[in-house]
Amino acid sequence: MSNTETICALSTAQGQGAIAIIRLSGEKSIEIADRIFRAKKKSKKIISQKSFTLLFGQIIENNNPIDDVLVSVFRSPHSFTGENSVEISCHGSIIIQQKILQLLVRSGAKIAKPGEFTQRAFLNGKMDLSQAEAVADLIAARSEASHKVALHQMRGGFSGDLQNLRKQLLTFISMVELELDFSEEDVEFADRKQLSVLIEIIDKDIKKLNESFRLGNVIKNGIPVAIVGEPNVGKSTLLNTLLNEEKALVSHIAGTTRDAIEDLISISGVLFRIIDTAGIRQSNDFVENLGIERTMQKIDSAQIVILLTVPDANGMEFIIMANEILKKNKKLIVVFNKMDIKKTLVPDIFASDFKTVNISAKTGENIEELIQEILILSEIDSINENDTIITNLRHFEALSLAQKATERVKLGLQNNISGDFLAQDIREIMHYLGEITGEITTDEILGNIFKNFCIGK
Amino acid sequence: MSNTETICALSTAQGQGAIAIIRLSGEKSIEIADRIFRAKKKSKKIISQKSFTLLFGQIIENNNPIDDVLVSVFRSPHSFTGENSVEISCHGSIIIQQKILQLLVRSGAKIAKPGEFTQRAFLNGKMDLSQAEAVADLIAARSEASHKVALHQMRGGFSGDLQNLRKQLLTFISMVELELDFSEEDVEFADRKQLSVLIEIIDKDIKKLNESFRLGNVIKNGIPVAIVGEPNVGKSTLLNTLLNEEKALVSHIAGTTRDAIEDLISISGVLFRIIDTAGIRQSNDFVENLGIERTMQKIDSAQIVILLTVPDANGMEFIIMANEILKKNKKLIVVFNKMDIKKTLVPDIFASDFKTVNISAKTGENIEELIQEILILSEIDSINENDTIITNLRHFEALSLAQKATERVKLGLQNNISGDFLAQDIREIMHYLGEITGEITTDEILGNIFKNFCIGK
Repeated sequence: MSNTETICALSTAQGQGAIAIIRLSGEKSIEIADRIFRAKKKSKKIISQKSFTLLFGQIIENNNPIDDVLVSVFRSPHSFTGENSVEISCHGSIIIQQKILQLLVRSGAKIAKPGEFTQRAFLNGKMDLSQAEAVADLIAARSEASHKVALHQMRGGFSGDLQNLRKQLLTFISMVELELDFSEEDVEFADRKQLSVLIEIIDKDIKKLNESFRLGNVIKNGIPVAIVGEPNVGKSTLLNTLLNEEKALVSHIAGTTRDAIEDLISISGVLFRIIDTAGIRQSNDFVENLGIERTMQKIDSAQIVILLTVPDANGMEFIIMANEILKKNKKLIVVFNKMDIKKTLVPDIFASDFKTVNISAKTGENIEELIQEILILSEIDSINENDTIITNLRHFEALSLAQKATERVKLGLQNNISGDFLAQDIREIMHYLGEITGEITTDEILGNIFKNFCIGK
Repeated sequence: MSNTETICALSTAQGQGAIAIIRLSGEKSIEIADRIFRAKKKSKKIISQKSFTLLFGQIIENNNPIDDVLVSVFRSPHSFTGENSVEISCHGSIIIQQKILQLLVRSGAKIAKPGEFTQRAFLNGKMDLSQAEAVADLIAARSEASHKVALHQMRGGFSGDLQNLRKQLLTFISMVELELDFSEEDVEFADRKQLSVLIEIIDKDIKKLNESFRLGNVIKNGIPVAIVGEPNVGKSTLLNTLLNEEKALVSHIAGTTRDAIEDLISISGVLFRIIDTAGIRQSNDFVENLGIERTMQKIDSAQIVILLTVPDANGMEFIIMANEILKKNKKLIVVFNKMDIKKTLVPDIFASDFKTVNISAKTGENIEELIQEILILSEIDSINENDTIITNLRHFEALSLAQKATERVKLGLQNNISGDFLAQDIREIMHYLGEITGEITTDEILGNIFKNFCIGK
């Protein structure tokens, strides 16, 4: 599956930096780089360089220097893509990046498509498809948890689990075949029992992987948290305090379902997606004007709701609100802010029915306690390095189909259907697992996966 | 001048990319990197690596992998800084960048200050100060011309000129000393003549460098161009067409003297700073309401003015305007837009007095012609690779002081002052030139220079 074309792209972040890396991959990448390079030691040439060495010199265009660069050489198959590869480390000016890329194109390279380097690594057997997908997840990881999960997957953790499943499935098939061979004899019942035991193990493993998606999804996309409250109870201050407290990553993303802006914050290595509930309230009458209904709509997508208030707010309205939230199966924390101003005890009526925390968003008092409550409600325990957690919808869907086929095998065993039919369902399970690793794939699937990569990876 | 501390920083552009580079420099950089690294081939270690080689493995924190990385090793003195250096090429996720930097700091490295790598290169004698400054200019270059000038300077072109001057100055001093030695004898006149010839050469060289600053300044900061015209004559369309035509770099920078936004565009490799004259006009009466005076203020900082109009606009108003612009010593091009709609000939009254171009900003017709006119008026010929062009105000100021001292030497020679005094002025010239190369420097000067660098360089 070798690609004859040599591709090139800027692999470091867009924009100006001290250093930029331009990466080349393909059969002719070493020759192409050699053509535009002049080593400082005149006697040296890129084409004579050993793999995994660096050479200092200049990129030359029509005898004029473009930049002083360091060139790394990787010879097939010992490179990321498995092909001959060159990395040009130049000064990070945008002009230099453009000039070198233009020169490479004129010298016979093509600008790489998004993810094309990783796609080649997959096509050249350097990694399976789930590992390739993990590369993109690793780069995009916004919290320690998602970083850990993506790294485990990239390093082949998930692939190992799938291989293990494959081995079990092959054992099943070989047992079915054995049963068929001996079908004239009286050995069937024993085999069926063994098959039942085996399919239970397979079923359990697939279910376990599939169930991890609920966790994987929130790890990857953030646990949705709504901070609900009247104006001036300190919502923004709380958000800022959470951010400062944790020196977390912050970014704003456009909401996928609405046009609202959401805040992503990482608290103790877990990503939370703060749902903006600003602008809900329009008059002074909390219950009537705010409309509990409208607030409820806003927080429908939340998993955790922080109901923020101040000690002297109208208690009854809050109790109505809090109960509505609980009815929706949301996890609720009632937070009394401004304890620096007024050290009121939490009213008994709250303390007995709801999880409550007294804080001062302004001074940061008790924020650590609130964070602990949020982390408990997030139900993300420290992730085990060796646990596979599915974060990818494509994998989840393939596993779900595999799980359905497993159910059919179980039912088939119960109904004593023939081994041929059992083997067919088992092959179907293998097919879906093969889609995950990329053993079974189409150009369309590949296109969909790699189009979301960044250029240069 | 060795620094014992090992510094580290992200050297690629901020943000997420396929690859990020974290750079280490300092005596212990190889040991520190080794401590947090585990090679894929278990037998290999960073501390055993040869200079200019790469090693594949993992960054490890408390036995847990953070990322798969490639590590480049450079041993003193063969590195950018002259010190032991390591570059860690990791996946470009922000989380990974942060985690590796934090781990390096815990392992004994310090986060580098802006420009600290280059400052160390200077302190370790890898480059002089003007070359170090050129590194920052090279990274920030926004046009081919500024790229070329910065590259020439970084590669020691300017330093060579200064060395040459230094040699001439030393010749002068040795001749003066010779004169002093023979002062009892009757050789003075011959020497004075030789001295006069030599100081003329020195003076000419310094003047030539200093005069290049006018060009260097516009190369670096862009040639200021004002596009002036009534609304709807096609100003924005013209700007966009210029941009598309040249597929140029575009950026918006906050004006330095006013709060206006200026557009930077690169046309045929020359940077132009387009001065925004939008919002000048407020009613339909062009002359009275616009106020030629106000327009004039706006275009005071321009070198070239494009006066844009349409064929059927009020001619008289334009002639007044055009003449005012010429009086201000601005270079003027009168541009008739919308030739696609109305192919009017340029009125004679314009054609005879002003440089005029008929264009269609919309269709792009004759835009190439306009670009040629702009380039001619910019007076930037193709820059010779080997010409030194001063772009740095600090260098210009030092050269100006050197030039003044040269004038004193010339005057001294005319007035036949004693060799001692001549030598003193010559030493002053050397002092100012030494400030440029950094032979004479203070912490304050260094601080001012390197604080403007990006981190990681």
